[in-house]
Amino acid sequence: MAEVSAETRSPAKTLVESHLEGGVLTLTLANPPANALSIAMMEALKGALDRAREDERVAVIVLGAAGKVFSAGHDLKEMTAHRADADRGRAFFARTMALCSSLMQAIVRHPRPVIAAVDGVATAAGCQLVASCDLAVASERARFATPGVNIGLFCSTPMVALSRNVARKHAMEMLLTGEMIDAHTALSFGLVNRVVAPQALNRTVMDFAQTIASKSPLTLKIGKEAFYAQAEMGLAEAYEYAARVMVENMMARDAEEGIGAFIEKRQPQWRGE
Amino acid sequence: MAEVSAETRSPAKTLVESHLEGGVLTLTLANPPANALSIAMMEALKGALDRAREDERVAVIVLGAAGKVFSAGHDLKEMTAHRADADRGRAFFARTMALCSSLMQAIVRHPRPVIAAVDGVATAAGCQLVASCDLAVASERARFATPGVNIGLFCSTPMVALSRNVARKHAMEMLLTGEMIDAHTALSFGLVNRVVAPQALNRTVMDFAQTIASKSPLTLKIGKEAFYAQAEMGLAEAYEYAARVMVENMMARDAEEGIGAFIEKRQPQWRGE
Amino acid sequence: MAEVSAETRSPAKTLVESHLEGGVLTLTLANPPANALSIAMMEALKGALDRAREDERVAVIVLGAAGKVFSAGHDLKEMTAHRADADRGRAFFARTMALCSSLMQAIVRHPRPVIAAVDGVATAAGCQLVASCDLAVASERARFATPGVNIGLFCSTPMVALSRNVARKHAMEMLLTGEMIDAHTALSFGLVNRVVAPQALNRTVMDFAQTIASKSPLTLKIGKEAFYAQAEMGLAEAYEYAARVMVENMMARDAEEGIGAFIEKRQPQWRGE
Repeated sequence: MAEVSAETRSPAKTLVESHLEGGVLTLTLANPPANALSIAMMEALKGALDRAREDERVAVIVLGAAGKVFSAGHDLKEMTAHRADADRGRAFFARTMALCSSLMQAIVRHPRPVIAAVDGVATAAGCQLVASCDLAVASERARFATPGVNIGLFCSTPMVALSRNVARKHAMEMLLTGEMIDAHTALSFGLVNRVVAPQALNRTVMDFAQTIASKSPLTLKIGKEAFYAQAEMGLAEAYEYAARVMVENMMARDAEEGIGAFIEKRQPQWRGE
Repeated sequence: MAEVSAETRSPAKTLVESHLEGGVLTLTLANPPANALSIAMMEALKGALDRAREDERVAVIVLGAAGKVFSAGHDLKEMTAHRADADRGRAFFARTMALCSSLMQAIVRHPRPVIAAVDGVATAAGCQLVASCDLAVASERARFATPGVNIGLFCSTPMVALSRNVARKHAMEMLLTGEMIDAHTALSFGLVNRVVAPQALNRTVMDFAQTIASKSPLTLKIGKEAFYAQAEMGLAEAYEYAARVMVENMMARDAEEGIGAFIEKRQPQWRGE
Repeated sequence: MAEVSAETRSPAKTLVESHLEGGVLTLTLANPPANALSIAMMEALKGALDRAREDERVAVIVLGAAGKVFSAGHDLKEMTAHRADADRGRAFFARTMALCSSLMQAIVRHPRPVIAAVDGVATAAGCQLVASCDLAVASERARFATPGVNIGLFCSTPMVALSRNVARKHAMEMLLTGEMIDAHTALSFGLVNRVVAPQALNRTVMDFAQTIASKSPLTLKIGKEAFYAQAEMGLAEAYEYAARVMVENMMARDAEEGIGAFIEKRQPQWRGE
């Protein structure tokens, strides 16, 4: 939860820093110490993600954060200020939750793979961000919690992402106790893919990013979309759908090139089509 | 499976003992050695759970058992006796399964979190009880199995709960072989949250229970209900639903109090509203 | 992916070897080095599975492979050859994917439990075969990957099986990077049930197979079918369904025999009815 006051979020401040290098777009939450998901922060992050959809230079996205806190979730002072509204804040809370849910789904629905790089505390909607990414790498000092229950506000939207990542009793333990888990526990739960020393975090994330950036962007887009789509289907429907996806993928130029290169033992040249 | 005869289940005997202290309601299966889930036992447990729904003194429920067996599942002698019925037992078996399924769902649908405290063998519907609880703590001497396949009766209802807790191949191993797994295997499968020495079981369970009992009961109710509801939805639907739940939760007095207390760095005073 | 050329798959060659002993039908992919899932191989395997449905001597099926590669997935040379077709291969690719999906579902829908015995590399649709089996045992030299992304063809059908076995971030790591995981990683992901030394693989698989073969075939059939059916349902529906399955199972002769034998402390005599 946010320690930061609303005043620090002036429009002039860059809330999300973007850095593009070698096909890897790094988006950094840049409002320490809490990197609270205020309206402005969520709009900045969603905007950056939306722009990356159309940017063919972007092969993969890394989501990181400045400071010791990855993100503490919603901006509680911003929300509390709206309790003075005529509707006691209902409209603002609805707007906040709609934007947050839209942001999280923008990660899941994004055509590029998104990797979370977590070097600090990720709580509530901050933990949800990590769970929403396709992959996550944590440093040994990363920690995770869904602590809403401690302040009377159950982490009901974070649990949508969390419960699609970890086993039911692990999710329930985090949600009901609100307690912090360390990085190794998060690894054992399946919430993150790797835990490394803090000084190795960037290298590990970039290894993942560059590995993925070397693939056909069209193939990644086809596969990521199909992954989340089939996950919601029964087995027969999922196979019918995935078989159609495979046929279309086979007809694409990059599959012809990739399979040809494999048979001819040469490097493929992707064209993203 | 039950070793106990039907005769020992006289109405005079207390099959489920209740103990309420500090907001923690402990329900103890008290028909050792097997703690079989006879009709009488299931009705006693479901009755105790139903009463606790309306009891505002209850913040969290602990489900334990007397003796070396947590529960051996259905009362096979009771069921076998009904093979002499005109319908060869069909109506009685249907009643048993309906009551059992209703009992398990009463745990899942219960507004209070339910924690299993397992110090012995939990098999068949006994294992299902553990899987149906929100959290579970096992002692090192706890063991788990779905052994129906050994007696020609596949654990088809237990697997509804089991397969929503553990990975598919783990569930299938238990179901197809019928073999016992130890507490540490259950931990690695995600069936239980903790494994501790027998002498530490009560303390560990009470730590969980008291942590949870310190939260707003309204918030726990909102969150637990939402958890199992969203688990059955696709992602977009789950987010729409959970966002609505969050807005309603924000409008509740306990969220206002909890967030206010957090910002003001003081202890919240819950009113459950 | 297949190294083998289409020419080696003459109709005269036995692509899948069958061996029945003690109720255990072992099907061996016998087209090393790649054991590619060509049309002929898939038809051979599906045919063997279909015949086993009707063969009452078969209690359990083991799926193994000759050579160092369990299966490298689809026959890429066979597929590439059809790019010369008038439709650029579309009809052939659709036929391949339909047959593959049908084969995988034939394992899931098979009345007998199917155990994968993996002593080598299982990639793409080869990894999907392992994921589709009810149980899997790997030797320490087994390795697994969904490397389609490396050749421009995302493993979209393999992921249907994979994502129903392992956690979301684990599946995504395999799918997006295309990299190989070793047997112990596969074990930690839940993709396989056991990892053993190569010389112990056959013994471990046969222990599983014989344990399962000692059960009532009717009970196994009822339970396996119910497992995958209830997995696609919401909780209330799953309990209604599974309760009906339990009642029918109770009315079967083998349940009466099994429960009677248990109460009388004797070995049951199954009749599969």
